[in-house]
Amino acid sequence: MSILIKGVQLNQRVCDLYIEKNLISKIGDNLNLPADKVINGRNKAVIPSLMNSHTHSAMTLLRGYADDLPLMEWLTKKIWPIEARLTSDNVYWGAKLACLEMIKSGTTFFNDMYWHWEGIAKAVEEMGLRAAISSVFIDFGDKNKQKEQIEENERLYKKSKDYSDRIIFSLGPHAIYTVSEESLRWAKDFSDRNNLLIHIHLSETEQEVKDCLEKNGVRPVEYLEKIGFLGQNLIACHSVWLSDREIEILAEHKVRVVFNPSSNMKLACGKCFRYKEMKDRLLCLLGTDGASSNNNLCLLETMKFASFLVKFSYSDPEVLSCQEAFDMATKAPAIGFNILCGQIREGNLADLLLIDLNRPELTPGYNLTSDLVYSANSSCIETTICNGKILMEDRSVEKEEEILEKAKEVAYSLKKDS
Amino acid sequence: MSILIKGVQLNQRVCDLYIEKNLISKIGDNLNLPADKVINGRNKAVIPSLMNSHTHSAMTLLRGYADDLPLMEWLTKKIWPIEARLTSDNVYWGAKLACLEMIKSGTTFFNDMYWHWEGIAKAVEEMGLRAAISSVFIDFGDKNKQKEQIEENERLYKKSKDYSDRIIFSLGPHAIYTVSEESLRWAKDFSDRNNLLIHIHLSETEQEVKDCLEKNGVRPVEYLEKIGFLGQNLIACHSVWLSDREIEILAEHKVRVVFNPSSNMKLACGKCFRYKEMKDRLLCLLGTDGASSNNNLCLLETMKFASFLVKFSYSDPEVLSCQEAFDMATKAPAIGFNILCGQIREGNLADLLLIDLNRPELTPGYNLTSDLVYSANSSCIETTICNGKILMEDRSVEKEEEILEKAKEVAYSLKKDS
Repeated sequence: MSILIKGVQLNQRVCDLYIEKNLISKIGDNLNLPADKVINGRNKAVIPSLMNSHTHSAMTLLRGYADDLPLMEWLTKKIWPIEARLTSDNVYWGAKLACLEMIKSGTTFFNDMYWHWEGIAKAVEEMGLRAAISSVFIDFGDKNKQKEQIEENERLYKKSKDYSDRIIFSLGPHAIYTVSEESLRWAKDFSDRNNLLIHIHLSETEQEVKDCLEKNGVRPVEYLEKIGFLGQNLIACHSVWLSDREIEILAEHKVRVVFNPSSNMKLACGKCFRYKEMKDRLLCLLGTDGASSNNNLCLLETMKFASFLVKFSYSDPEVLSCQEAFDMATKAPAIGFNILCGQIREGNLADLLLIDLNRPELTPGYNLTSDLVYSANSSCIETTICNGKILMEDRSVEKEEEILEKAKEVAYSLKKDS
Repeated sequence: MSILIKGVQLNQRVCDLYIEKNLISKIGDNLNLPADKVINGRNKAVIPSLMNSHTHSAMTLLRGYADDLPLMEWLTKKIWPIEARLTSDNVYWGAKLACLEMIKSGTTFFNDMYWHWEGIAKAVEEMGLRAAISSVFIDFGDKNKQKEQIEENERLYKKSKDYSDRIIFSLGPHAIYTVSEESLRWAKDFSDRNNLLIHIHLSETEQEVKDCLEKNGVRPVEYLEKIGFLGQNLIACHSVWLSDREIEILAEHKVRVVFNPSSNMKLACGKCFRYKEMKDRLLCLLGTDGASSNNNLCLLETMKFASFLVKFSYSDPEVLSCQEAFDMATKAPAIGFNILCGQIREGNLADLLLIDLNRPELTPGYNLTSDLVYSANSSCIETTICNGKILMEDRSVEKEEEILEKAKEVAYSLKKDS
């Protein structure tokens, strides 16, 4: 399959872009190359597709099911009881819905942690996206649970080799307060031996820090350093309640940190991600978190929340510019997840978007990055391409109606049982 | 003109809705009434259209022109020099662009303050929206400027009677730091005599409070009370840096306050709107502010910012629920601006929206208000009706292309001259 995009805006110029198989093979003027598909790029801009560094995809099934509640009440009374009943097929449809929403909002990679790994992997495989998928690992110090989860992760890791290379198997120890030290050590060791990413929730709430201090005598990052858990393969989500010393430690170990502004605000986590202190020392990424604490998976919106929340919290309108917000969902995660994308250039994977520029919210159009981050919503994304394949064209995605119907059916049956 | 909407979702039921002239004349089951236009409401919900309580419409021309700058540098080096050169025709096209954007994002009323009143009024009249329009009144204590502005406002007030009743003339003394006490007294008197609304910026920054304390020995609200300026006709925008006593005073005088979360965050105003202390005592409204400090005019997005910013700032996930956010842009402004809209009921003005429910971000659809406020973007709005007239159908607005082109032309000529 080859695609030729003619006369499209790329940064400040207009050019042609040629996609062969899954790569951007040529960018230039007046490219006259044979192509299976030619797209007219007039009044369109090409940008890298977006990368969501923290989500729980199938929580789309719980969107709007419980809002405006305190965290623990929300979790224990609403979310966990439903999650306990989820089947792999339920999760598959929830993940399909999430993939559909992401394709329509320009995301082609996501870093996921949820139950029923195979349901998610199947959905991602079918929908044509990329994902790093981890199975939630929680043992609460229970030896049987621990054994079960380790075996399950070993089984899934082997199984993951049957999937295309768009599916990245990773480990998902949920958090330090839900996973035993022994299991964390196992995860670190298993990830080192097999070169796997680890996806964890870290220092999301003040309570987590207090509990850790009480239990371990040190703060969460210090605890993880002590048990040898930190490294470049660690994706530490939230990372909100950090001391200066903890930021130093994370930087020393090149840990990747993920800012989830909307979720932090909705769940009222009580503190802003310390962007100013981290930006030059750590790779900072952006995530939406799950659709139950956001409540959408739209990264364009998340970029705006990220920039605005940081500006507001530091009382500094200059911090976290629109370009930095954009990079946190493109260039930076391409590095963090080691995928050759995140920028439009020859040789990179053809993971990209076409933006319809003929829209009031993108007019007059002085600065596309500002317009995308601060003004646009995802409906200006006309075409989504991942791995050289068109997943959305003219805002239309294959089997959209079926996915919406099945996801509704599954969601209502879950709610009915509750 | 009459419109019959068949089988549309209204709150928890499905019903028919009949619009005659500019009113919702009947809501019921199986209405078989003759209509000039019949709309199939299947998979659609009807909601009141949105009301923007604070904006500067023609600043759409400056969208993305200057971002990520400190407030005073942004104003003095970027915004004011361009604004000084604006003509009435420029402003007309900027306001047309704003009206187009608002129609496409479901807003049918806005409270505006800008230069070249007639340019804005003409745009609003043509585009079919409602607006309370005030001319920026700034005199910096200069007697000549004061005389000029008073005469101009008296002239415009007379002139405003030539327009339809969708155009509400109001007074726009910019702020206490740009308008002399004498002019404020004139505005209050003129508004009392003619039953006009007053649109002002109040306590947006800490500096304003400090300067007022230094100059007048009291805080801004206390100063305005002292000069007899406060009343139910006052729309006080921002109202961020308020003391307990000031909130009390505002409540005593039934002043309406407007929360502009995105603008407050982008410009890093340093403090959150004191929603918890005001919600039961004052009519709290929502505004987008101008497109140069937001950078869009989308109220669905603003509702999410409002709720999330307040939750975050109070560390309380229960405060400012999705329903309250929705009401702040519908029911509440209908009261504040005394317009018979903001709710779908018989006898009300036919200012309403049809929402396309068949979308991933509105699926599964447990709670439409939550989905609209926390998950949707404005592209789910399929039809916009104001005063019984369809302004957008299937997301298409008359003369959209022409407006985008002309607005771009005007904006680029302004930038070129700068």
